[in-house]
Amino acid sequence: MLGGACTYISLSASYFTPVKIVAVVGEDFLQEDLDLLAGRGIDLAGLERVPGKTFFWSGVYSADMNDRTTLCTDLNVFAGFQPKLPGHYLEQPYLLLGNIQPALQRGVLRQMKSLRLAGGDTMNFWIEGYRDELLETIREWDFLLINDSEARLLAGEDMLRRAADVIRAMGPRILVIKRGEHGALLFGNDGYFAAPGYLLHQVFDPTGAGDSFAGGFIGYLAQQGVNPGEGEIDPKLLRNAVVYGSVMGSFCCESFGVDRFRTLTRAEIDGRFQEFKSITGF
Amino acid sequence: MLGGACTYISLSASYFTPVKIVAVVGEDFLQEDLDLLAGRGIDLAGLERVPGKTFFWSGVYSADMNDRTTLCTDLNVFAGFQPKLPGHYLEQPYLLLGNIQPALQRGVLRQMKSLRLAGGDTMNFWIEGYRDELLETIREWDFLLINDSEARLLAGEDMLRRAADVIRAMGPRILVIKRGEHGALLFGNDGYFAAPGYLLHQVFDPTGAGDSFAGGFIGYLAQQGVNPGEGEIDPKLLRNAVVYGSVMGSFCCESFGVDRFRTLTRAEIDGRFQEFKSITGF
Repeated sequence: MLGGACTYISLSASYFTPVKIVAVVGEDFLQEDLDLLAGRGIDLAGLERVPGKTFFWSGVYSADMNDRTTLCTDLNVFAGFQPKLPGHYLEQPYLLLGNIQPALQRGVLRQMKSLRLAGGDTMNFWIEGYRDELLETIREWDFLLINDSEARLLAGEDMLRRAADVIRAMGPRILVIKRGEHGALLFGNDGYFAAPGYLLHQVFDPTGAGDSFAGGFIGYLAQQGVNPGEGEIDPKLLRNAVVYGSVMGSFCCESFGVDRFRTLTRAEIDGRFQEFKSITGF
Repeated sequence: MLGGACTYISLSASYFTPVKIVAVVGEDFLQEDLDLLAGRGIDLAGLERVPGKTFFWSGVYSADMNDRTTLCTDLNVFAGFQPKLPGHYLEQPYLLLGNIQPALQRGVLRQMKSLRLAGGDTMNFWIEGYRDELLETIREWDFLLINDSEARLLAGEDMLRRAADVIRAMGPRILVIKRGEHGALLFGNDGYFAAPGYLLHQVFDPTGAGDSFAGGFIGYLAQQGVNPGEGEIDPKLLRNAVVYGSVMGSFCCESFGVDRFRTLTRAEIDGRFQEFKSITGF
């Protein structure tokens, strides 16, 4: 079924701001999947279609949904991907770099001419095997989104509070550490913020929750028009962005694949944002 | 070194309310350890001293402090323990039952004559091997403190929100699910509340953190004089109790064993309570 980081990020962000994507698919990519993205107003000019099969992943989750085992990862057309940005992308102010080889992320960032805020995601594969390349890449990022085990790996430090200091010294002054069902932590210049995980009655499918988080995070900040070049981002907006990210991740888990995004409304999103206030206030 | 559930619970609760304990130790229990407890105003009339050795536990923690392996558990004088309550204990309004055989917990509760609020802790050993006895015991409790894996085991349900419904139907209308470094969840009549884990720069020793949580939770509620017999407890007080529990658990981890309680002050506790507000507000 339809999946992929770019899919989840763009669907999620589209509830907050216009979105343009750069990505690659193969000949097997379905028209109905293109229609879903286009139906959310997502600009597909940077979506390259090439001979071959689309990237494919499959896996199995543990009973409590906290662990997963990959059954199959076929890079297919993703293996030779060189992101090419359409001309009208280059002046965009906000950039979210999905998980891919750090050198490609850097190449995209360096093509952009008017960035206000840029950052992205990475994973253990790049941290372990491409460390120097990764460090050179994230040095230019304003924010990094990463999960807790990867934060520990990147920093070489088990205590997250110390790991955060180490990582922020690598470049990204805004660090979000995602902890799955346990929520997310934001580290910035004003200390840290802890957002809880939303308790679902049933987690149908956590696939894409982290990418949906990223889409809500950058989408909200874009909607707010933040511009750190004109002074530090209001810490309250960053906290809201983390909560909106958590909201989007929670909705993603409620249905298989991207199905929840077929019916989700902005009113439901804002309703759950308020619910986060009620479950955390004391 | 000094340890044990009763030790941590009573030291922690003593910052909020006068505490009386019922427990058993052997001939090897040190006078300086008695002095520590007495120095915090803890009533030791119910502390029985019998021939033999005190209960002993040792273990090793994982690098990230989230898992531990028991090296040795010697019940010693704990094996034949029959709690005997001194006469002046019987009219006390608040009861916290530490982790022990459920029938003994029930025996203590039934001796009490004027309880306003009672509850306690249990563990996988009793859930798996003494289920009927445990269910008969917790049916009479107002609150249950339990960790997440044990909640799943007790309820037979992986999703915590559903597990909470199942457990609350067993008796305890107030349920606190502890998640170690990930904080704690409170389930009551007004839905749920999520308290984050406090991020320490260094976790020296998590031993006793759950019991310190319990002491802060019941100690705060006792200090507030809550009386559910006169109407439901203000949900705000229950949320505060969970945060104070979290505060006490976090302090416990800062030093080896009970050492942090040798210097901890109520002002530090209230300071960290305010810090919890600042790390969760948005």
